[in-house]
Amino acid sequence: MSREAINKGFAEMFKNGVIMDVTNADEARIAEAAGACAVMALERVPADIRKMNQVARMSDPAMIEAIMKAVSIPVMAKIRIGHFMEARILEALGVDFIDESEVLTPADEAYHVDKTPFSVPFVCGARNLGEGLRRIHEGAAMLRTKGEAGTGNVVEAVRHMRTITEEIAALRGLDERALAKRAAELRVPVELVARTRDLGRFPVVNFAAGGIATPADAAMMMALGTDGIFVGSGIFKSEHPSKMAEAIVQAVIHFQEPARLAAISANLGSAMAGLEIGALDTLMAARGV
Amino acid sequence: MSREAINKGFAEMFKNGVIMDVTNADEARIAEAAGACAVMALERVPADIRKMNQVARMSDPAMIEAIMKAVSIPVMAKIRIGHFMEARILEALGVDFIDESEVLTPADEAYHVDKTPFSVPFVCGARNLGEGLRRIHEGAAMLRTKGEAGTGNVVEAVRHMRTITEEIAALRGLDERALAKRAAELRVPVELVARTRDLGRFPVVNFAAGGIATPADAAMMMALGTDGIFVGSGIFKSEHPSKMAEAIVQAVIHFQEPARLAAISANLGSAMAGLEIGALDTLMAARGV
Repeated sequence: MSREAINKGFAEMFKNGVIMDVTNADEARIAEAAGACAVMALERVPADIRKMNQVARMSDPAMIEAIMKAVSIPVMAKIRIGHFMEARILEALGVDFIDESEVLTPADEAYHVDKTPFSVPFVCGARNLGEGLRRIHEGAAMLRTKGEAGTGNVVEAVRHMRTITEEIAALRGLDERALAKRAAELRVPVELVARTRDLGRFPVVNFAAGGIATPADAAMMMALGTDGIFVGSGIFKSEHPSKMAEAIVQAVIHFQEPARLAAISANLGSAMAGLEIGALDTLMAARGV
Repeated sequence: MSREAINKGFAEMFKNGVIMDVTNADEARIAEAAGACAVMALERVPADIRKMNQVARMSDPAMIEAIMKAVSIPVMAKIRIGHFMEARILEALGVDFIDESEVLTPADEAYHVDKTPFSVPFVCGARNLGEGLRRIHEGAAMLRTKGEAGTGNVVEAVRHMRTITEEIAALRGLDERALAKRAAELRVPVELVARTRDLGRFPVVNFAAGGIATPADAAMMMALGTDGIFVGSGIFKSEHPSKMAEAIVQAVIHFQEPARLAAISANLGSAMAGLEIGALDTLMAARGV
């Protein structure tokens, strides 16, 4: 089995799961106990990165290792877009998945990391069909939307998911000639576009990420067709992180049962406060097209 | 041996080394102990020059001399672009290398210093092939990228290095007529362009500078083909300058060993805070084309 197939298969195992941002071993244990399928180890959740308005980089390997030791579920960590050396370092460290993330400050505005020579799998963000296919072509084993991280505002994740769904649906009507033209527009090989058209979805799992702050948000994204959920600031910026973490995991499992979602959503305390997109100085989602 | 050949040979000795900005004798000693191959003596690191938003000039010769007395490694100092009198003063002072630097406020927007009559060697910044070749033609013995100094953001240094690499690679396909046309565009003699084409690199050493703040940044720039690293604000704006200085020196030596880089990157405390390029008022890299 090829490394590519193994990595895509590993990503499939996260399906219908919730991946949570954690900044230390204690938070990682809370996430694991709540039923997270993986954790994302980082020094600051996106809401805090936004407040700082400084350069955000790969986390301290010592901190990532402490989280790897604290939990038995897979541990992901973030690199700057294009920073292939941060990627090599995280691979050497033995993290289970690398997120080439627009939440950190981009290191290369022309090129994303060429992910094909790596053994470790990568997840990348995508706002639309073209971004997603370009990342897959570069070797990403998993995608996620680029909803504005750290805002607690789900509107961008919804926009990206709807755009992707509509753009994939529109492929269905294309004959081979039109498909070749579309592939050229998207700047990827026509075979990859044809495969996506035939599957009616990306050929890798696609999660929702950015701005998901409540069980209702998570369930909505699942109903819109995402394969699972990343929750960044939504857990540990809420009033009762442990309760909120468990509620979001349950909401993803039971997203088709509104009465159950009502019970899951009750008595959780405040969700993270959040920010209006219009009030932002930096739009992270626009990084790395 | 010509002075030009001696100066270029001297610059070659810095290969695979790290040159650190220092503002006093104590910092210079820390840099030397950490394994810096040279120090750059200046009154304020670029991050502080940026904050002041005032005219930045050659440093006080007394301060530069104090640093020269404090360490046994070569001492460099900066002059304003085109300020040939600051250059003559620094040469008389006996500095080992002069950096004609966009970090200071340019003194002449039409001409860089004619470096050919000087005995002391010069290093100049370059964002692309043309800037680099023009500086070499003016007599520079060494080049460096012009990544946005004082930002702790490596993205511009990466852009400059990638641009230079791609532009040099593109020379390979040119026949003599096309090369003459390219030389005219670059405003340098065709012999210099031909030599660069034949070598597949600049005929002087080319370092990465501007925004390098972590061992991973330094190792990435080495992997992109730079001959060594300048670290400005990255050392003495970090939480533990001595640790960070040593880690960056080690990362340059071991840039091809990711597991070692992971260990080198651990437990360093915070890197310099840094600034988003989009948030800057002054783009220093655009000075002196």
